[in-house]
Amino acid sequence: MSSNCIRNTAYPFEISPDMYKEQRQRLAASMRTCMDDTHAAFLQGSSEVPVNSTDVNHLFWQESYFAYLFGCDIPDCFGAVLTDGTGILFIPRLPASYAVWMGELPTPASVKEATGVEEVYYTDEINETFAAKGVTTVEVMKGVNSDSGLNVLTAQLPQPSKLNTSTDFLFDTLSRQRCYKTDLEIDLLRYVCRVSSDAHIHVMQQCKPGMSQHQLESTFLHHVYYHGGCRKVADTCICATGHYGAVLHYPNNDAPIEDGSMALLDMGGHYMGYASDITCSFPVNGKFTSDQVMIYNAVLDAHDSVMKSLRPGTNWVDMHKLALRVMCKHLLRAGLLMGDVDTIMQKRIMGLFQPHGLGHLLGMDVHDVGGYLEDCPKRPVESDCCKLRTARVLEKGMCLTVEPGCYINRSLLTDAFVNPEMKPHLHEEGLRKLWNFGGVRIESDVVITETGVVNLTVVPRTVEEIERTMAGVPFVGEPVVFVNQKNAP
Amino acid sequence: MSSNCIRNTAYPFEISPDMYKEQRQRLAASMRTCMDDTHAAFLQGSSEVPVNSTDVNHLFWQESYFAYLFGCDIPDCFGAVLTDGTGILFIPRLPASYAVWMGELPTPASVKEATGVEEVYYTDEINETFAAKGVTTVEVMKGVNSDSGLNVLTAQLPQPSKLNTSTDFLFDTLSRQRCYKTDLEIDLLRYVCRVSSDAHIHVMQQCKPGMSQHQLESTFLHHVYYHGGCRKVADTCICATGHYGAVLHYPNNDAPIEDGSMALLDMGGHYMGYASDITCSFPVNGKFTSDQVMIYNAVLDAHDSVMKSLRPGTNWVDMHKLALRVMCKHLLRAGLLMGDVDTIMQKRIMGLFQPHGLGHLLGMDVHDVGGYLEDCPKRPVESDCCKLRTARVLEKGMCLTVEPGCYINRSLLTDAFVNPEMKPHLHEEGLRKLWNFGGVRIESDVVITETGVVNLTVVPRTVEEIERTMAGVPFVGEPVVFVNQKNAP
Repeated sequence: MSSNCIRNTAYPFEISPDMYKEQRQRLAASMRTCMDDTHAAFLQGSSEVPVNSTDVNHLFWQESYFAYLFGCDIPDCFGAVLTDGTGILFIPRLPASYAVWMGELPTPASVKEATGVEEVYYTDEINETFAAKGVTTVEVMKGVNSDSGLNVLTAQLPQPSKLNTSTDFLFDTLSRQRCYKTDLEIDLLRYVCRVSSDAHIHVMQQCKPGMSQHQLESTFLHHVYYHGGCRKVADTCICATGHYGAVLHYPNNDAPIEDGSMALLDMGGHYMGYASDITCSFPVNGKFTSDQVMIYNAVLDAHDSVMKSLRPGTNWVDMHKLALRVMCKHLLRAGLLMGDVDTIMQKRIMGLFQPHGLGHLLGMDVHDVGGYLEDCPKRPVESDCCKLRTARVLEKGMCLTVEPGCYINRSLLTDAFVNPEMKPHLHEEGLRKLWNFGGVRIESDVVITETGVVNLTVVPRTVEEIERTMAGVPFVGEPVVFVNQKNAP
Repeated sequence: MSSNCIRNTAYPFEISPDMYKEQRQRLAASMRTCMDDTHAAFLQGSSEVPVNSTDVNHLFWQESYFAYLFGCDIPDCFGAVLTDGTGILFIPRLPASYAVWMGELPTPASVKEATGVEEVYYTDEINETFAAKGVTTVEVMKGVNSDSGLNVLTAQLPQPSKLNTSTDFLFDTLSRQRCYKTDLEIDLLRYVCRVSSDAHIHVMQQCKPGMSQHQLESTFLHHVYYHGGCRKVADTCICATGHYGAVLHYPNNDAPIEDGSMALLDMGGHYMGYASDITCSFPVNGKFTSDQVMIYNAVLDAHDSVMKSLRPGTNWVDMHKLALRVMCKHLLRAGLLMGDVDTIMQKRIMGLFQPHGLGHLLGMDVHDVGGYLEDCPKRPVESDCCKLRTARVLEKGMCLTVEPGCYINRSLLTDAFVNPEMKPHLHEEGLRKLWNFGGVRIESDVVITETGVVNLTVVPRTVEEIERTMAGVPFVGEPVVFVNQKNAP
């Protein structure tokens, strides 16, 4: 069933219509550099998605380019942005009888009031509205999401229409724009990240051996929704414990939690269209073993080293390699790897332990758009870097996750033990002793500032902080600002 | 991301593979009445559904005809049932590299072990498997879900294929079969209904004026998942308070809860493919006002009257009319209606107060299939009955909701006040005094037995029970069995 755009007042964080207005203005400024006022951007919002052939729908999820410009949560809308920045929303004209099932129907006046979009009409008024504005060409999306490989929704004009359509401009421009967060967006991301951080802390404090993984997921979902108003999460929660921790996107969350194991919880709330994505790793019984300390601190050192190096101009691929190098040193010191860092890195052996990228752009989508735009660096081909979701040089306003991880991945290691290149560097016996270890991932959400980075994630990170928090001591913290030297790493 | 079929042991209710086996055997028995063993039923399971163009998926929801026969929660499967009842599952052959992201990949052996399906192969072995079994014709689904109007998924054979396909048999047969629940299915429905009942009680006890509606939804979702293992709910929760209670499918759940208002909460867990659907209505502050008692008891009387009349042979449309008549008497007594019951019923005036059907079939889908099969009674055309999702004569093993409701629907009443036929029967002043009332719905899940009905819902229903429960007294109850006289109403 359709959701209604008018938001009530009980949610804890109110988004200003100015946020969307600024986003429309930025788009309009780009438009004015290359087109006249006979052009308008034209987007289509998403529709309800039924569960198979039933009359139940999945929770409605507005298309994110559309949500980015209009902040409107009604299905089956269209929207336009004129070159002067005026936003125009087109809402469906629903039969009056829907009101019995759905409540007061949205009208142009009520939607204008709720969203702050400058002009609102019905979808059957699209052609005449463009005609009245002197628009003869609409710029529509055409492009592929580089994370999913799926085509982004291309707006369809009502037929017959005399308007020209162009696909040259919008996808690239808007994808690029979404990479640079405004201050209002950063406020919102800080909020959803804080809500998600608090929920992680609560879960950590509730976790006990003998529970089921699904109870951790349920506790998180409840906390972000009840206390933070996040009806959705940014992606399916990963509540892996024990050897499941090595499964990067563990989907089931239905195994018993065994004493002595590590938990790896990758979960983030989604608030009014904006995502958070945080991973905490901790021993389920609240006390680290020496093995757990060793691997945990390897990952934390990688995480902190990256944090101290991020600033405008930093190359993301370098950060990825930095994290791998730092972890490599720890594994060498622990005797799990043999040889020297350079050789091990050159043989791509660290890709066995962290078979994913260091992190990704974050925003409205948890894997946000803009990672591989046309003039951006291409995806690296090396086996230990090829999973990176972007290879860009960082700039102010970019929001990313930093998420190094170290896993005892049985299938990758089993193959590597018989690989003549890799075998001499792997301490098979030591690694097999950790066969049930699973993994550690430490994931924080950051924003690049003029001089460094802000870590928006506020959770216990050191071994001592985690043990203290799990023993019941309240965790107090604030986002940490790093002022980083140029060329630090 | 794909979920894995192998269920771990932490969930509280284990489903026997015998349940699905019996369902296959019943289908096979129907097949044998009209076809030889060169025929097989052939179904396709559902695929992951992405959120718009992103790489995030909605929580996986197996197609329910497929789930009904195979109990298998892996995306992109096919399945067959032979005329001797043998089940054959075809699972996707995933690249080994998926294991890094998804965990141990399902194999025929592991899926056979987990599901109890007799034979399991990969989807690239479909044609050769049918050939080896001597199957030359596959019976596939072709039909429309009568609640959504959507086409049911028709299995596509891998091409090229020499098999014949027939669409004459499967949709109708399987839809019909799903209406008669087996004892094992009823055990499972009793479980999910109990879990959902307990969660409703918990929500009722947590509810306080000043909270937000979304906190009631969050509390329910948490309770059914944390304590009952229900990762999904059967439909989007309706957490309406105050005047929102008159909106039948109120979708937002984001308004503040005002002191003195009624709550109408329509929510049910979904456990391993089976749905519950329960509505509780209560005053948000725990104490009924006299107006609230009057309308609540009108609906409760309708609910109880139906409960005392259900048994094999009962006509569902008669039950619907019975509920309307009972409520009509109460509204007359309260002075909100004027005239006599027969005239008011004949003028379809009760359709203003309950603009929906008395209830619906319940099972794997919350609005379960089989409501309007080919040889079943057609949908009534009268304005106060036309929303019924079935018009069938009840039989043993059918599972339905009983959900009378009485709403102060402003838009319907506003029209009726100027309708010369209806106007003389409506006490406009009295009804306008209740303009913010919203509504009351009382919804229970029942199974028709040989001699009556069992109400699987275990929640406080009388005014006294609700007030006591909301004051903190634990509610104790068990499903209630009704042995009903023939032709009771």
